[in-house]
Amino acid sequence: MHAKLPHPFDEATRITAGDSSWQGHTSDDYWAFVGPFGGATAATILRALIDHPERAGDPLAVTVNYCAPIAKGPFDLDVRLVKANRSSQHWSVELSQGGGEVATLATAVFAERRQSWSHEVARRPDAKSFEETLPFPKIAASWANQYEFRFVEGEMRIGPPQTELASTYSKVWISDRTPRKLDMLSLMSMSDAFFGRIFHARRELVPFGTVSLTTYFHTDAESLAAEDITRVLATADAKIFHRSYGDQNGELWSPSGRLLATTTQIAYFKA
Amino acid sequence: MHAKLPHPFDEATRITAGDSSWQGHTSDDYWAFVGPFGGATAATILRALIDHPERAGDPLAVTVNYCAPIAKGPFDLDVRLVKANRSSQHWSVELSQGGGEVATLATAVFAERRQSWSHEVARRPDAKSFEETLPFPKIAASWANQYEFRFVEGEMRIGPPQTELASTYSKVWISDRTPRKLDMLSLMSMSDAFFGRIFHARRELVPFGTVSLTTYFHTDAESLAAEDITRVLATADAKIFHRSYGDQNGELWSPSGRLLATTTQIAYFKA
Repeated sequence: MHAKLPHPFDEATRITAGDSSWQGHTSDDYWAFVGPFGGATAATILRALIDHPERAGDPLAVTVNYCAPIAKGPFDLDVRLVKANRSSQHWSVELSQGGGEVATLATAVFAERRQSWSHEVARRPDAKSFEETLPFPKIAASWANQYEFRFVEGEMRIGPPQTELASTYSKVWISDRTPRKLDMLSLMSMSDAFFGRIFHARRELVPFGTVSLTTYFHTDAESLAAEDITRVLATADAKIFHRSYGDQNGELWSPSGRLLATTTQIAYFKA
Repeated sequence: MHAKLPHPFDEATRITAGDSSWQGHTSDDYWAFVGPFGGATAATILRALIDHPERAGDPLAVTVNYCAPIAKGPFDLDVRLVKANRSSQHWSVELSQGGGEVATLATAVFAERRQSWSHEVARRPDAKSFEETLPFPKIAASWANQYEFRFVEGEMRIGPPQTELASTYSKVWISDRTPRKLDMLSLMSMSDAFFGRIFHARRELVPFGTVSLTTYFHTDAESLAAEDITRVLATADAKIFHRSYGDQNGELWSPSGRLLATTTQIAYFKA
């Protein structure tokens, strides 16, 4: 009998247990031209927190500031519980390599989520089913090929210069290419798995990098596990590109219509 | 001749210069029932960064995690430049009182914003002018009375229980009650100056507190100064209230139609 191989995502976001300091390693499978895919880095940081012996509750809010490129190889995570309350925790994580300067700075809020009044203001956008939607072809970035993207609307089309700008809005099914049951880690990663909105608008690839990413979780680990899903229906849009920076906001929905996470980011571009 | 008194907002967000540690003081003028108005705290933190001798560039992204209540009185700001690049800086700030635990944990990205391709995807919502819109009456929270709110749409109406939930969307002119030329500090503060979306939906006040706030600036200090304005047209909405936490997202527009900032937050509620 063969032991089951770990999923590439679990391999990519693996960490070595420590106390205040944890170790991780960049993954060639989730590489994004000049550095690791930011979603994988965010998920690795989140894994260190979820696996931490002092952790209580579920991720509620995670902000990741990408300060400097991460080189291929090992990295250290300096994990600190900044403040613990009765039902919430505030964490800070600094990622560095070889004792050098901080490359990634993250904060996270964990919370024990109690039953409460519930009100879903936003509704899952209409969409053709995953099965009825065509897969997006594989592209050069390795990280993107770890996912299967099926664009319901706003597919990225790189091509000759256009006189009119294209829409920045996308509606897309996102799944791990090797299906993997969705958990808080893959939800974190998928919240950064949109293509740069500027690529959509200009129909060309330009130098681009996420500077700061914030994701809110609107589900807890147990409820998410109960959904038992391997994909999300996600939407993303931008509001502005100005003086070398542009924003993005997105929603990640379960197929059954639950809003699992909302996300926003600001990214550098050269154009 | 009398010296001009400082504006209440400048008084509330005053800091005493330090090197890595700065001092501030809570303001009774910007008090919010059980602690200082989060917008004032965020602006005080931002002031310490803007005034810091090592600061370069303008605020791009600020995340503030409200970890614990701040008591009336003085507080310390532990300010740290985590990483500086050629054209951006990553900062971390911890607010504490009397040598105690961290009450507020913030990160900020500053950037020198270069000319670039520009594309305004979002458009300023239509609205009656400030002058044509009725001021919202003064309410019990002192911080709210430092602002003048003129609701174009989605005014908060507290009243008897309703069978139908009200809209969570608001479109509102926000101005300092004593007019003050808008700068990055007041923009930061105003990005937290919406009433809790849950108050709008339920038409009642319930225990509520922002847990994490993220604001992106889409203008730089010089361009904002050139606008020479004292108010913004702001919109806010929520997507979900679930298991004791709800989100909010907002936009802050100049009267002339420039998107100055976008903001999102996740807040605790008891209902």
